[in-house]
Amino acid sequence: MTAPELKNDRFLRALLRQPVDRTPIWIMRQAGRYLPEYRATRAQAGSFMNLCQSPELACEVTLQPLQRFDLDAAILFSDILTIPDAMGLGLYFAEGEGPRFEHPLQDRGSIMKLGIPDPEDELRYVLDAVRLIRRELDGRVPLIGFSGSPWTLATYMVEGGSSKEFARIKALLYNEPETLHRLLDTTAQAVTAYLNAQVEAGAQALMIFDTWGGALTPRAYREFSLAYMQRIVEGLVREHEGRPVPVILFTKGGAQWLEAMADTGCDALGLDWTIELGEARARVGDRVALQGNLDPSILYARPERIREEVARALESYGAGSGHVFNLGHGIHQHIDPDHVRALVDAVHELSAPYHQAV
Amino acid sequence: MTAPELKNDRFLRALLRQPVDRTPIWIMRQAGRYLPEYRATRAQAGSFMNLCQSPELACEVTLQPLQRFDLDAAILFSDILTIPDAMGLGLYFAEGEGPRFEHPLQDRGSIMKLGIPDPEDELRYVLDAVRLIRRELDGRVPLIGFSGSPWTLATYMVEGGSSKEFARIKALLYNEPETLHRLLDTTAQAVTAYLNAQVEAGAQALMIFDTWGGALTPRAYREFSLAYMQRIVEGLVREHEGRPVPVILFTKGGAQWLEAMADTGCDALGLDWTIELGEARARVGDRVALQGNLDPSILYARPERIREEVARALESYGAGSGHVFNLGHGIHQHIDPDHVRALVDAVHELSAPYHQAV
Repeated sequence: MTAPELKNDRFLRALLRQPVDRTPIWIMRQAGRYLPEYRATRAQAGSFMNLCQSPELACEVTLQPLQRFDLDAAILFSDILTIPDAMGLGLYFAEGEGPRFEHPLQDRGSIMKLGIPDPEDELRYVLDAVRLIRRELDGRVPLIGFSGSPWTLATYMVEGGSSKEFARIKALLYNEPETLHRLLDTTAQAVTAYLNAQVEAGAQALMIFDTWGGALTPRAYREFSLAYMQRIVEGLVREHEGRPVPVILFTKGGAQWLEAMADTGCDALGLDWTIELGEARARVGDRVALQGNLDPSILYARPERIREEVARALESYGAGSGHVFNLGHGIHQHIDPDHVRALVDAVHELSAPYHQAV
Repeated sequence: MTAPELKNDRFLRALLRQPVDRTPIWIMRQAGRYLPEYRATRAQAGSFMNLCQSPELACEVTLQPLQRFDLDAAILFSDILTIPDAMGLGLYFAEGEGPRFEHPLQDRGSIMKLGIPDPEDELRYVLDAVRLIRRELDGRVPLIGFSGSPWTLATYMVEGGSSKEFARIKALLYNEPETLHRLLDTTAQAVTAYLNAQVEAGAQALMIFDTWGGALTPRAYREFSLAYMQRIVEGLVREHEGRPVPVILFTKGGAQWLEAMADTGCDALGLDWTIELGEARARVGDRVALQGNLDPSILYARPERIREEVARALESYGAGSGHVFNLGHGIHQHIDPDHVRALVDAVHELSAPYHQAV
């Protein structure tokens, strides 16, 4: 089967710092609870896990935001904790709470015994969703595949769910670093296989979400989070279907460590809103593209204010390619979808002058 | 009444970058739930609010950690939300949850009507605690007074309690900045009066806790948090009882903005653990002292590991005065007090070589 030609490749071109006519935009968690049609599908699914595990429903919600907004990329709808679940930890969602594991990793023995899931077996439902979404997208925009970073996955696996203080995993980090390294090594191999399988199934760009890397000291970040993301980057298939497959690294709270992140060999860095785009660009130079970084709370503001903040962000990045517009974190659930339309349209409209041929 | 001579002034000297024999140490939230004697007094008080509002009990818990550990400073036991409570918002603590307000600020009218409390009236219980603690300390170590920053206080006042996304206050920030400026201006004046009254009552150094400044963009941080901390610094009594009263600013998540913080005219910056001490010192030069910055989770580790991390932090800061050892955030409640002793003793023991006369 030959893939249909990509009609809008702004997103992929910007990640590779190739010329574009407009700054591309997509939105973290764009398929989510702020959309009434998402809430309807979620209700129909019965549970969040059912929604994730049904390729048809995952495809449906992946495409929903593209029907409303002029977005330049689709992102696979899935959960970041599919890998630990496939490893046998038993992911579930208690109503009104975050994710939990039935069998968190509570001792060295359970960490040593962990195996690497076969993506086409235990994670087949994800790959089926990727294949279905690619077919349904029909070349309209590229599809992003993703995974949590090894450190971020490990926090949930060891803590048993979300955490504020990371007491268990940090005790492990400081008392038994070798055990934690084993866990991160296993997880990094699993992530690499999973992302490569997503590419094989049709993902055209990849993003690694390091949601909790910012909870570490600079030294621990390099040793326990960044080193494993680097290994993943080195193990990824970087070209498929005759095109490069760009890789984006995103460490929330990692704005201080951009230079080190750029050194991993990734194509782009995701930025949260604690740094100016222009400053980030000056620091990384032409080594990587940048994705971000509007404060998601700006979407609570009136459309005119959203437009002003878009103008400011575009001006901060400046002329030329290498910028993918996005929020600095996932969109909040109480945002008015009309405000998202204002954002997307403002980015396309106001960015044109920054991409004039010189 | 003449104040008794200060027997241990390491902490004050380090904040002023004057020579010391050892690096001084105190611990954020050192009077807290990790101490069984604190839990006993807290139980006796009946509620957290009773504990804060009783000068005798507040004095008792303030002194408890000094009886166990060789700490170089005491910090007033109080809550950061005493000012909004004194403004009439009705602070309370729901069991197992964070602080809440009975009357959060939900419209422009309620913000415009806010007045500035008289510290010797509505906040007299705090000042009585300061006076009592100073008397009981009898010059053993200096006493630190403190307040939340205007931005941090405003987040609780507008959100009605703790928040993850800061939806309400950020909507206000982006839609009605003038209203938010009014709130911050009122709060900054209240904080200034409150801190000056603490100095008058006996506080020998001051710390401003900007717990939530790191949730802002760089631009919004300068406009809505830092500008008001600067005004406070400018309005503080900087000398009392014939000694300078040093001021420490601490923005959690603010390691990127150290230069701007140092420009406020404060004496020292508190650091969280996301930056190396040596890097921070190189950036601020000799403009301010630094306080911090061990990851609080390091206290879950074995005493030998704690000692190694202390050695690393001392080495990172390097020779000379200007460093007050501390954690990068408050101590966690499940820490073993023996690990705190290991920390305090390691700091004093291992820091001596860094303070040899040259």
